[in-house]
Amino acid sequence: ALAAPAIAQSQPKITWRCTSSFPKSLDTIYGAAETMAQFVSEATDGNFQIQVFAAGEIVPGLQAADAASAGTVELCHTASYYYWGKDPTYALGTAIPFGLNYRQQNAWFYYGGGNELMNEFYATQNLYGLICGNTGAQMGGWFRKEINTVADLNGLKMRIGGMGGKIIEKLGVVPQQIAGGDIYPALEKGTIDATEWVGPYDDLKLGFNKVAQYYYYPGWWEGGPVLNTLVNLEKWDGLPESYKAVLDAACRAANADMMASYDYKNPAALRQLVAEGAQLRPFSQEILEACYAAAMETYEEINAQNPTFKKVYESQQAFKKDAYLWAQLTEYTFDTFMMRLQRAGKL
Amino acid sequence: ALAAPAIAQSQPKITWRCTSSFPKSLDTIYGAAETMAQFVSEATDGNFQIQVFAAGEIVPGLQAADAASAGTVELCHTASYYYWGKDPTYALGTAIPFGLNYRQQNAWFYYGGGNELMNEFYATQNLYGLICGNTGAQMGGWFRKEINTVADLNGLKMRIGGMGGKIIEKLGVVPQQIAGGDIYPALEKGTIDATEWVGPYDDLKLGFNKVAQYYYYPGWWEGGPVLNTLVNLEKWDGLPESYKAVLDAACRAANADMMASYDYKNPAALRQLVAEGAQLRPFSQEILEACYAAAMETYEEINAQNPTFKKVYESQQAFKKDAYLWAQLTEYTFDTFMMRLQRAGKL
Repeated sequence: ALAAPAIAQSQPKITWRCTSSFPKSLDTIYGAAETMAQFVSEATDGNFQIQVFAAGEIVPGLQAADAASAGTVELCHTASYYYWGKDPTYALGTAIPFGLNYRQQNAWFYYGGGNELMNEFYATQNLYGLICGNTGAQMGGWFRKEINTVADLNGLKMRIGGMGGKIIEKLGVVPQQIAGGDIYPALEKGTIDATEWVGPYDDLKLGFNKVAQYYYYPGWWEGGPVLNTLVNLEKWDGLPESYKAVLDAACRAANADMMASYDYKNPAALRQLVAEGAQLRPFSQEILEACYAAAMETYEEINAQNPTFKKVYESQQAFKKDAYLWAQLTEYTFDTFMMRLQRAGKL
Repeated sequence: ALAAPAIAQSQPKITWRCTSSFPKSLDTIYGAAETMAQFVSEATDGNFQIQVFAAGEIVPGLQAADAASAGTVELCHTASYYYWGKDPTYALGTAIPFGLNYRQQNAWFYYGGGNELMNEFYATQNLYGLICGNTGAQMGGWFRKEINTVADLNGLKMRIGGMGGKIIEKLGVVPQQIAGGDIYPALEKGTIDATEWVGPYDDLKLGFNKVAQYYYYPGWWEGGPVLNTLVNLEKWDGLPESYKAVLDAACRAANADMMASYDYKNPAALRQLVAEGAQLRPFSQEILEACYAAAMETYEEINAQNPTFKKVYESQQAFKKDAYLWAQLTEYTFDTFMMRLQRAGKL
């Protein structure tokens, strides 16, 4: 018998299911998975298909990684920090408070050993990870009252999850876990005093500016949060090499595409929010410093208990020190000059 | 007879030649073309091969786009602003002085109509363009003497090309065109007083710090210069759809990869340059403002003569105004706080 032609073997028909942690209404984040799927399909003449399902269609959003790990689906698109309760190392795959910004995340993952370190960990979870999207630095969120001092944080009921919530709790904030759709009424009724979400484009759609006037920045708990494609490890290992390469390139392309999409959409949304009365407020240095001290305390606690977290954390930290030395020279002074022109109406 | 299987038709064996405008010694920029070629090969099981040739192997570096346009090679990897003498619209494909930063370039090209506008122009040059790399904001270069005022620029002989040279000439600088390998002796002998190149990683290799002490920033003429894959238009049009998708995704992946590579390599090189005696100096506000005024004058002159340039320029400008409004909120204040910590030794 004749051997099957190599070309046919190398492009088998495969259909995978990808469960997203996000609803379709978060179209930019949800869209990164669809962008990835589209690149994969087009690059393989439709032979490798990835069907994307919104949160809840197959499993709830916060069970996406479990579904991929268990093989219920072949892969998911999620934010790995959702699973930090299982192991805080998951948080380092997306963002930790006062962590890396967008460019630094890419540099660390692609060149600084980040992909290798995180995949050592993901392998213990039966997963293979590819970075696939970023929101950029998020906003600090919506507050019903001005927050000027650390004392103003005491007793504040704020919708904030994950490690940011754990850290800000040390300063007296009472963190609340509330699903996206339930935030607006809670803020309207005063059940909560503040909420964080993403940034202008997504926040505008939920209308938070109508029930909380003050829009704070920066969202120090998410300086450059990464979205993750997490693939069931056996499914990844069994993929033809060319399909691995296609999926890898597709995730890289979708990663950059999502950031560009937010960078294009956020300015107009910000203008509209301000036109509708949003009051922009920077967090004070006092507040940022107190939060930073609380974060450092938290990392010391976790490092003492979890050697895997410590190993990955220290790699990120070492790069961050160098990266912020370099970033403050030409990139920062170029941007600063352009921002001065923008404020002076000269751009 | 049986029809040939569709799969075999869709992955024909193709080998293309890509002429780079760069020598192999500029390994990060030259490397972006190799990264692109590698993604393409791996994603097609080696059926679509792109061979990359360094500047001079097929045609000189500054003739790369002409070679692709004429069909001497199928494609090139270059910086489109090298060809601004033919038509200044080429400059907008890479960088114009006081233009967009890295993230803004991606947002404008991917979402702001940049790809469409530039490809309308490239089509008139028998080319199809894909963005494929970025150096980030470059340094302002090496000066033998301190430059504090606009008066200090008068009569200064500086190796600086392109539109930056044309603009700074208005302030009395005498721009010089000197190939990479000839800069060091010219600076050593005092034939020139200053030179710009790229940034710490590349500058260190040429050893400029040994013959010019002052290392200025920012390189306002290149806030986020894009590298370009320019494909002969008929060759692009004749490519199977799946290969177009593969090449597109490969360029997107290589684009992000090159920025990450520089972001990873530059910090260590900067530390070494400073350890070897380089003196870091910001350009004064007075100098930046005078250069900005000269740039605006230049754009007015070009806009009056060239409607294609004007159309693309105005699209970039409109996005830039909005983008710098948004960038100064959360992204900038997050980075600023982290930089303060870095300077205080607290990161």
